[in-house]
Amino acid sequence: MARPLDVLNNALNSPVIVRLKGGREFRGSLRGYDMHMNLVLDNAEEIRDGEIVKTLGTVIIRGDTIVFISP
Amino acid sequence: MARPLDVLNNALNSPVIVRLKGGREFRGSLRGYDMHMNLVLDNAEEIRDGEIVKTLGTVIIRGDTIVFISP
Amino acid sequence: MARPLDVLNNALNSPVIVRLKGGREFRGSLRGYDMHMNLVLDNAEEIRDGEIVKTLGTVIIRGDTIVFISP
Amino acid sequence: MARPLDVLNNALNSPVIVRLKGGREFRGSLRGYDMHMNLVLDNAEEIRDGEIVKTLGTVIIRGDTIVFISP
Amino acid sequence: MARPLDVLNNALNSPVIVRLKGGREFRGSLRGYDMHMNLVLDNAEEIRDGEIVKTLGTVIIRGDTIVFISP
Amino acid sequence: MARPLDVLNNALNSPVIVRLKGGREFRGSLRGYDMHMNLVLDNAEEIRDGEIVKTLGTVIIRGDTIVFISP
Amino acid sequence: MARPLDVLNNALNSPVIVRLKGGREFRGSLRGYDMHMNLVLDNAEEIRDGEIVKTLGTVIIRGDTIVFISP
Repeated sequence: MARPLDVLNNALNSPVIVRLKGGREFRGSLRGYDMHMNLVLDNAEEIRDGEIVKTLGTVIIRGDTIVFISP
Repeated sequence: MARPLDVLNNALNSPVIVRLKGGREFRGSLRGYDMHMNLVLDNAEEIRDGEIVKTLGTVIIRGDTIVFISP
Repeated sequence: MARPLDVLNNALNSPVIVRLKGGREFRGSLRGYDMHMNLVLDNAEEIRDGEIVKTLGTVIIRGDTIVFISP
Repeated sequence: MARPLDVLNNALNSPVIVRLKGGREFRGSLRGYDMHMNLVLDNAEEIRDGEIVKTLGTVIIRGDTIVFISP
Repeated sequence: MARPLDVLNNALNSPVIVRLKGGREFRGSLRGYDMHMNLVLDNAEEIRDGEIVKTLGTVIIRGDTIVFISP
Repeated sequence: MARPLDVLNNALNSPVIVRLKGGREFRGSLRGYDMHMNLVLDNAEEIRDGEIVKTLGTVIIRGDTIVFISP
Repeated sequence: MARPLDVLNNALNSPVIVRLKGGREFRGSLRGYDMHMNLVLDNAEEIRDGEIVKTLGTVIIRGDTIVFISP
């Protein structure tokens, strides 16, 4: 079995897509996480309707706003 | 009695349908879960109105956005 | 006094109606539950406006999306 | 002082009105409750705009959807 | 310092105004509370737009629907 | 480092602005708080669009409806 | 690995952008935080659609309203 936090751990330093409630999406390199699935992304970009609307550098995303994370 | 986490455990490595709040649906092969019902799907597809709108590979879905899981 | 989880326990293997937030309704045979009121239904049907819109077989329903359960 | 759970206890086997988030209302005879204020009603009726829209027999109502309970 | 639960305790058997999420308001005499700020009001009235829309006698109000309480 | 509860403590008996979810705003003198950031204000005023819409005397504001507090 | 709270700690006394649910954004100098990600900002400004709509001095922002924090 692949537990959710193990999958996150294997994705460290790799690109991930993060979908938030309300439809926002972030892409970036996963630099860290905690047990609440709060994430740290580097070189983060905010995406809406397939377009980059903001480049953010490092960003801490709250786990409770996340719908899914795709490594 | 079939407890919810036992049913998930029996569905490991089998296809599942996951309905999210707001109506989104994911299909994929269940690779893992945790006690919060966070799920790991492989070969995941996002479905809206019966159409595949995105293929996602591996995806971690937050349990608190889930309405139901059907093995 | 009839405690909520006792009433669920007495309803095992019997048909139940489950109303969700947002108005969705599921019917099926109650196969299990846990202390969060996550439920397992067999032969589940999703109902909207009195019509069956989907037959789902086995389904795990998240307790936090439930408004009421009627045995 | 009349603590909320004491008031519920005194209302056992008596009629109660239960208002839910979103405006739905249930009436019935209070048969049980737990510390989360999940309730068991017998002879439950669902009310909208003062009209009975459904008779439900026994019903378990999730505490986190409740706005108020009036014995 | 006046802690929130101390202020509630001092308001026992006195009239309070309770504003709920969504704008509903209740007035009544505070008869009890618990650590979740679930309240018991006597001679409760539901108010909308400054008008009494319902008289409710005793009512248990769930703390998690409350915006503010004014003694 | 200035921890959030330390900043609240330093603001005791001073005027604060409290913004709630949905845009409501309260002003008043901070008389107390607890670890959930439930607040007690004295001489509280409710503000909408920059106008005082209600004067409330003492008010207990639930922490989980608060967006920010500004001393 | 860079844990979310470590990244916050490294950002102390530096400017951060804080995006809230509903789209509001705050900028300011991070003066403190706690384990719930409640934040203290100094010289805080509220931003909507790229415009400063309010200058707030010191502000305590509730963690559960935060979508992301970008140092």
